[in-house]
Amino acid sequence: MQVRKFRITDAVFERSPGQDAEVFAGNVIDQRHGGPVTIGFGRYGPDQSIDELLAVHDTMVVLEGRLTVSTSRVTVTAGPGEIVYMPQGEKVTIRSHEQGAVTAYVTYPHWQEAQG
Amino acid sequence: MQVRKFRITDAVFERSPGQDAEVFAGNVIDQRHGGPVTIGFGRYGPDQSIDELLAVHDTMVVLEGRLTVSTSRVTVTAGPGEIVYMPQGEKVTIRSHEQGAVTAYVTYPHWQEAQG
Repeated sequence: MQVRKFRITDAVFERSPGQDAEVFAGNVIDQRHGGPVTIGFGRYGPDQSIDELLAVHDTMVVLEGRLTVSTSRVTVTAGPGEIVYMPQGEKVTIRSHEQGAVTAYVTYPHWQEAQG
Repeated sequence: MQVRKFRITDAVFERSPGQDAEVFAGNVIDQRHGGPVTIGFGRYGPDQSIDELLAVHDTMVVLEGRLTVSTSRVTVTAGPGEIVYMPQGEKVTIRSHEQGAVTAYVTYPHWQEAQG
């Protein structure tokens, strides 16, 4: 593998697994490439909400819009240029606001393998 | 560990190790927190250049400005909202342009431990 650059138009978006919300993920690097991390872009429609039990360590960088991430213990809201770190094992609700959101994400290990 | 949110003002910037360029890194999550990845923000002054032999897998999200990453085989340039993936073992030159740059990064494993 060598150095690679990705823009959002390189991602093929699929609906977030097990969800019917307007939340889409598009991997650009994953288990098919032989490295340890999955990298991709996320796209959230306006006022969407998904619940996830995190099978992997997930780092999200907000590129556009805002997201609110809640657990039973904490709620954080992030906008453009801000990072949300979601450790493996956490049960989170991720909510977008009226303008939707775009993210970049890095997971360790690969989320598609961890989901089984 | 629980869900956490970071903005660039949470980072304590230090000069990129072994360099005298105006390139600074500020971890917000690293080996001290017990997880598998290091997360942080990078700041590049105008027209700076650093050479690195990558001891870790490094994912960079450009937040502001532009960066050009070159190896002996490939050159890529990334702007806001774009991702550069730099696999472990690659020898890279990272150059900023006239407006400098700000990045978010995720490394696996921890870069400060890999540098020894």
